Amino acid sequence: MTVLVVGSVALDSVQTPEGTSLETLGGSAVYFSLAASHFTDVRMVAVVGSDFPEEHTHLLSSRGIDTRGLQQREGRTFRWEGVYEGAMNEAITLETQLNVFENFQPVIPPEYRDSDWVFLGNINPGLQKQVMEQIPGTRLVAMDTMNFWIQNSREPLLDVMKSVDLIIINETELRMLADTVNIIKGAKIIRNMGPTAIVVKRGEYGSALFYDNQWFFTPGYPEELVTDPTGAGDSFAGGFMGAVARAGRIDMETFQEAMIYGSVMASFNIQRFGPGMLTELTGELIETRFRSFQDLVNLHRSRLTPG
Amino acid sequence: MTVLVVGSVALDSVQTPEGTSLETLGGSAVYFSLAASHFTDVRMVAVVGSDFPEEHTHLLSSRGIDTRGLQQREGRTFRWEGVYEGAMNEAITLETQLNVFENFQPVIPPEYRDSDWVFLGNINPGLQKQVMEQIPGTRLVAMDTMNFWIQNSREPLLDVMKSVDLIIINETELRMLADTVNIIKGAKIIRNMGPTAIVVKRGEYGSALFYDNQWFFTPGYPEELVTDPTGAGDSFAGGFMGAVARAGRIDMETFQEAMIYGSVMASFNIQRFGPGMLTELTGELIETRFRSFQDLVNLHRSRLTPG
Repeated sequence: MTVLVVGSVALDSVQTPEGTSLETLGGSAVYFSLAASHFTDVRMVAVVGSDFPEEHTHLLSSRGIDTRGLQQREGRTFRWEGVYEGAMNEAITLETQLNVFENFQPVIPPEYRDSDWVFLGNINPGLQKQVMEQIPGTRLVAMDTMNFWIQNSREPLLDVMKSVDLIIINETELRMLADTVNIIKGAKIIRNMGPTAIVVKRGEYGSALFYDNQWFFTPGYPEELVTDPTGAGDSFAGGFMGAVARAGRIDMETFQEAMIYGSVMASFNIQRFGPGMLTELTGELIETRFRSFQDLVNLHRSRLTPG
Repeated sequence: MTVLVVGSVALDSVQTPEGTSLETLGGSAVYFSLAASHFTDVRMVAVVGSDFPEEHTHLLSSRGIDTRGLQQREGRTFRWEGVYEGAMNEAITLETQLNVFENFQPVIPPEYRDSDWVFLGNINPGLQKQVMEQIPGTRLVAMDTMNFWIQNSREPLLDVMKSVDLIIINETELRMLADTVNIIKGAKIIRNMGPTAIVVKRGEYGSALFYDNQWFFTPGYPEELVTDPTGAGDSFAGGFMGAVARAGRIDMETFQEAMIYGSVMASFNIQRFGPGMLTELTGELIETRFRSFQDLVNLHRSRLTPG
């Protein structure tokens, strides 16, 4: 019932039409862990620099996240600066300072090696492979990736994909990876690359799951106030994997519920700068929004009166 | 239980990555009527030229569509030529020959004046207004429009919108009309312009309904073969209005079902060039796909076994 995540920890500076944030806690491992921590135990593998504020580590621990795999190295923490414009569907990167993340070597602590559920955040596919070699006895391995690796590390990426169970990917990345504009065709092409389950993140349009020759769709949450989309994809992945690990099952029904929990966590996360919303949520708020998501798509037949 | 549609009848020439069509039957009134004819009686008001092939009128009649309001004028029928590229989300117009459509004056035959359900296809807002003045005693009037009228006839458009009940509009048009990128905000702005119900067509991402302060979403149908998106929006509108008229009710539950029927009709229509699929469908095929649409979004909880 424990989820292991390998990814980045960053200090993010973000500008959106709603305002700005400066060096807030961020990174794929952070958003993932905080979202997943509402469903299950989480173990984190990542690297930070000697300048990493201790309060951030305390925040993670306060959510019960196991940070024994969080290496601290001499130097500065990974920093990312970006802007979102208009409908905020895509970030424009202003600056990336890899810092200690540049030479990140993921080491899985011995205490983590019995992890059944694993999420390989968006890092170099070669490192994703190294992680998998250190934990051979998993029940489900999921991965993320990005356009940079699809274009520049295609072979190592295809190699990792052969041995993962699930890929969680943006729609534009799916099109690039499968070399087709039709995501239905694209999902089938990616299915043949290895992953038996494909989750397509579609920004404000929600997400789509392809598994066992079936499709399942969730809409984006109809929210007037989108403050900062940073971390939406990783919050989604955290909610998804957390829900799967909590259920302890690998089947279409579990994945469907996980899709909704992923959407719930992403929809909360984007309401504020940084991951603050994810730390304040309660199980009750999560379950209420889970039901709202169902109401967005389900016919209310029970309310029908004879015409 | 009769739907009246006012719109265009055209001869369309279309190029898509899947092939080409030459002067096939098209136009908003045609796609709408053929889709709606599977649910209810349909009355059409439109104009064609003296070159309009008689077989097309016979095809409409064979689906039970009342064409007494289809005027035939001296001259050529409206012609449209367009291309769809890539993901085929938007048509690129190569040529528009308005021909007899340029001086179209919609006249509602006396036999049509008891129509309860009306769809004002995408024509000049001034003409939409003229139609409404000829049929004062309706139960529900729906309208479509397009970027051209939003930009060039804003005042007449806002004037029509004041008295319609429902607007069925593309997402990009909604953003333009409401002057906001957030469609949730946009729908509320448009609600204040008059229509109590707003249906947003989102192409491959499906559609969204805003009514009674609630949202309802349907996904696009996961189809590998998209042959020609021409008429998708009008097929959607036809399925939607046909289903509402058949139910004979104006409430959220009816609109939700109508959203799915609209999506069903659009998803069939795009599988072939021209409106051919709409003429061959059976009630059974429609109901089967209706249930498929529900399966795309509904949790299969009944299949869950204790974990």
